[in-house]
Amino acid sequence: MSRIEQLREAAEAGGLDAFLATSDESIAYLTGFRPLQLERLFAVVVHADGGGGLVVPKLDLGQISGAPEELERVSYDASSDGLPELSGLLGGAHRVGVEEEHLIYARSSALSARGVELVPSGETIMDLRARKDAEEIEAIRRACSRIEDAYALAWRTVRVGMSERELNFRLESFLREQGASETHPHVLFGENAANPHAHPGDRVLAEGDVVCADIAACFDGYWGDLTRCATAGPPTDWARQVWALVRDAQHAAVAKCVPGETPRDVEAAEREILETRPDLGEVLHGAGHAIGLAVHEPPFLVPRVTTPLASGMIFTVEPGLYQAGLGGIRLEDDVVVREGAPEVLSTLPLELVELSP
Amino acid sequence: MSRIEQLREAAEAGGLDAFLATSDESIAYLTGFRPLQLERLFAVVVHADGGGGLVVPKLDLGQISGAPEELERVSYDASSDGLPELSGLLGGAHRVGVEEEHLIYARSSALSARGVELVPSGETIMDLRARKDAEEIEAIRRACSRIEDAYALAWRTVRVGMSERELNFRLESFLREQGASETHPHVLFGENAANPHAHPGDRVLAEGDVVCADIAACFDGYWGDLTRCATAGPPTDWARQVWALVRDAQHAAVAKCVPGETPRDVEAAEREILETRPDLGEVLHGAGHAIGLAVHEPPFLVPRVTTPLASGMIFTVEPGLYQAGLGGIRLEDDVVVREGAPEVLSTLPLELVELSP
Repeated sequence: MSRIEQLREAAEAGGLDAFLATSDESIAYLTGFRPLQLERLFAVVVHADGGGGLVVPKLDLGQISGAPEELERVSYDASSDGLPELSGLLGGAHRVGVEEEHLIYARSSALSARGVELVPSGETIMDLRARKDAEEIEAIRRACSRIEDAYALAWRTVRVGMSERELNFRLESFLREQGASETHPHVLFGENAANPHAHPGDRVLAEGDVVCADIAACFDGYWGDLTRCATAGPPTDWARQVWALVRDAQHAAVAKCVPGETPRDVEAAEREILETRPDLGEVLHGAGHAIGLAVHEPPFLVPRVTTPLASGMIFTVEPGLYQAGLGGIRLEDDVVVREGAPEVLSTLPLELVELSP
Repeated sequence: MSRIEQLREAAEAGGLDAFLATSDESIAYLTGFRPLQLERLFAVVVHADGGGGLVVPKLDLGQISGAPEELERVSYDASSDGLPELSGLLGGAHRVGVEEEHLIYARSSALSARGVELVPSGETIMDLRARKDAEEIEAIRRACSRIEDAYALAWRTVRVGMSERELNFRLESFLREQGASETHPHVLFGENAANPHAHPGDRVLAEGDVVCADIAACFDGYWGDLTRCATAGPPTDWARQVWALVRDAQHAAVAKCVPGETPRDVEAAEREILETRPDLGEVLHGAGHAIGLAVHEPPFLVPRVTTPLASGMIFTVEPGLYQAGLGGIRLEDDVVVREGAPEVLSTLPLELVELSP
């Protein structure tokens, strides 16, 4: 059954008259076309009782020839904001499922004002997107494999005295050369690694630093996202102890990636281990996120999510421990939820790399 | 007066109890801190009667030390989605101005359910952001200058037989080396240039092709965005005629970038010229967009926008004409609205470059 037919069935089962997809990734999932949205409206409408269409700005009409035939093509020019054309496609649909984590207030209130009853239904399409098919799993495995090559380059390249900026730039160039459409290498040194979202900058690597290397990249529409750590010279006691604790936490969390467990369980499994040593550092984030057409997508591995995991879901599992002023250690793999045992999509060894001077 | 004080005054004048900023760029404008949002909530609250704060995930606390002192720091961990903390900061505010082009439906409906009256007020903060100060104008001028260097590289590098992918990759690497935090080179060859949003790919440059080179990049938080065209070998009659018409349209539109004219006027000025020759090609998009902390930001130069231009606003002015199957020509400069005469921020000559074989 086509993805559009699956969405139609899910919309009908949810009591919706139509489903309105507006996020880049959902549009890509349904049509094979990934928009460049900026301020412009793009949307896919799927009616529960059949029919549907794709709304794009006129200047994107040349890009959508590969979209499924069953979707009517509707475009609008610069004199419109696309909402009249979207309303036309919605027709008489009253209860319309929307992606509440993407649809902006300007559009939700305009649709409400036209009498549409908006039903938050992001889960309806994420239920489909979350369970990856074999082709999608292989796409993510390939992305991971190219990221593994980037690690080989990173550990070969980085030396005391090199700046974060230079190293990240080399990794980005390498991944783009390999064909990445987007890439977020995020390698931090020493005390900067204690702030997981710090911007890589002019900090140069010094003897004794930890290196926390988070590398994500998108190939053929699908993301991989891995994190490994190293030390410049022999690890300090702190680095050695944190690394071992984080590895134990990662093992425990990966083991929970089986059908029936919940994101809350996965997060608890790693946090229980990390929190045994508050003297070593602090837990600053959840256990991970689903990954696929988006680098971060639901379900998120955080305590408030209790929907059971299902076969084919792919999560990053990425425990970390951070000590302000000193550094941070995180280990991240992309893990397929499988009956029996989870499958890790990368083959990169879990080791604390020791960089020679 | 600080930006936060200006926003407070504007909120009070608009009858708001508080203003809630949620977009990356507005948060950067108010705090100097540019978030990495993904699925996480970041927000700045400014109360009309004084006080306000900044809500960030706990893992971003390390990034906000430079934010204005007058903003209270509030963070939340992975057990929260940030909305309770945001509600706490909003306190008793009832009428709350929001960025309706950014706030997502999940959050707008949660705030509404808590009794907050949301008032679409994106214009309130965009009125401040749109009129750039001298420092911002210089930042955009510097970005343009680096993009001009990228053009020098492009015309020196591109030859018959080179692929779009390779050329765009080289430009991206160059701009990143120069320190760009983000960059979107978008150079298309021949018939691909007829689809302004085509993805650069394996198409190689052939004798007789037009090259439509749109290069945008962000330096120190501010974007520049220019477009120039070339031909591989001598231009065809079509390319020569289209180029001259587009240049005339650009002159006419730039001349309209003075206080008191409207986006509708600017767009009409160029479209009237472009539409004199429907045999040469089609108009596929509006006349341009404001540029600053975002590469595309309001006001947009489209017929439906009739708010007068004001001194200090900066727009891309980018007429283009496109002939399916043949190619497209676009010329784009970044233009400051000034009393008397508009100021073009780039010094790149307006010429149809002829590439030697």
